[in-house]
Amino acid sequence: MIDLMSLCAFNAAYAQTIDSGALERWPAFFTEKCMYRITNFENERDGLPSGIVYADSRAMLEDRIAALREANIFEAHRYRHLLGIPLIESADEKGARARTPLMVARIMHTGETSLFVTGEYLDRFELTSGKLLLAERVAVCDSTVTDTLLALPL
Amino acid sequence: MIDLMSLCAFNAAYAQTIDSGALERWPAFFTEKCMYRITNFENERDGLPSGIVYADSRAMLEDRIAALREANIFEAHRYRHLLGIPLIESADEKGARARTPLMVARIMHTGETSLFVTGEYLDRFELTSGKLLLAERVAVCDSTVTDTLLALPL
Amino acid sequence: MIDLMSLCAFNAAYAQTIDSGALERWPAFFTEKCMYRITNFENERDGLPSGIVYADSRAMLEDRIAALREANIFEAHRYRHLLGIPLIESADEKGARARTPLMVARIMHTGETSLFVTGEYLDRFELTSGKLLLAERVAVCDSTVTDTLLALPL
Repeated sequence: MIDLMSLCAFNAAYAQTIDSGALERWPAFFTEKCMYRITNFENERDGLPSGIVYADSRAMLEDRIAALREANIFEAHRYRHLLGIPLIESADEKGARARTPLMVARIMHTGETSLFVTGEYLDRFELTSGKLLLAERVAVCDSTVTDTLLALPL
Repeated sequence: MIDLMSLCAFNAAYAQTIDSGALERWPAFFTEKCMYRITNFENERDGLPSGIVYADSRAMLEDRIAALREANIFEAHRYRHLLGIPLIESADEKGARARTPLMVARIMHTGETSLFVTGEYLDRFELTSGKLLLAERVAVCDSTVTDTLLALPL
Repeated sequence: MIDLMSLCAFNAAYAQTIDSGALERWPAFFTEKCMYRITNFENERDGLPSGIVYADSRAMLEDRIAALREANIFEAHRYRHLLGIPLIESADEKGARARTPLMVARIMHTGETSLFVTGEYLDRFELTSGKLLLAERVAVCDSTVTDTLLALPL
């Protein structure tokens, strides 16, 4: 049975991986066949595709990170995720559905800090061989504006 | 006995209800006879009434939501709550007192996002028939300014 | 064995002590011989000393608070900490190492509120006679700019 603390611990590791810049370790939080999307509140409500970020396998997530490394944007800015407590919608011994609120600050290399993204994760977790992984994470941004500026993963 | 995780789970559901716009479900987090107030740090410290928001029953909370629906402000902006871990001051099998820090971002329909409110909840929880409810929630805003712009519940 | 909930509860009390202005109680969260530093991401990455805040004993922390009281800056502004879930790096019955993301808002006496600091705590906890204390807390700010404006403890 998946409990709240294990989801909290998972999310803490997930956020720290991104915010510390260890992006090559980020795809390992997902199942091989997975769904990762970034969209915004309006598009998600209306059932529209977002076009911002879309990947349906861990390999695509790895490609995305490789492309980011080539684009060499890592010195330009960093993110700081602050995640809330997950709201578990269903959970059993095989998986869980949960939604988790998030705030992400963006820190430019000049030091300028701003509240960049707010929103929530809509998640489907799978527990396989004792290991918790994301089969699906949809990051729904509250704003319809800032999402187009996204470079690093949410 | 009320534990930290049950308060965390309660708060996660509370915040998600407001931020998803399902405001009609918000009063159900309170006991029938309850206290809900929004005030600011200075007034609370000096024992002054705040005049911002005050309700002493679930029925009053329902009236407030109905009034908000009629005023039709829901398209204008949304909130995103990020709540900290509660600090439990006392807890037994019947209830608990706790305080929980909060940050609330406001997202305008233009997409503009700002850190709108910071503060803390001063809470008294009651556990009745296995169900946790708020007998009292005082939202104490750190700023003496932004609180007058509040429309949605904190 | 130190678990995630006990670290969460510790951090909730720590943050509330600072944000409520009860700064004289802040040094009691540390062991007598301890390390408390505030630095920024770049200096920490490069192994450079930060020069912002440095203390290697609880007595030095007490001195710092006394100096702040004399400087009488407490009416000028307040902080609101929002801390994430700790990422435990190691834990046994004697202590734990963890890192915890943080966002700190600064609220000026005019009411102006801003996202002031983001970063993470790098912590070493000790469990002595059933009491959890910080043997080391390094607050690493993401920005290289705002840290020089710090007055209150992080």
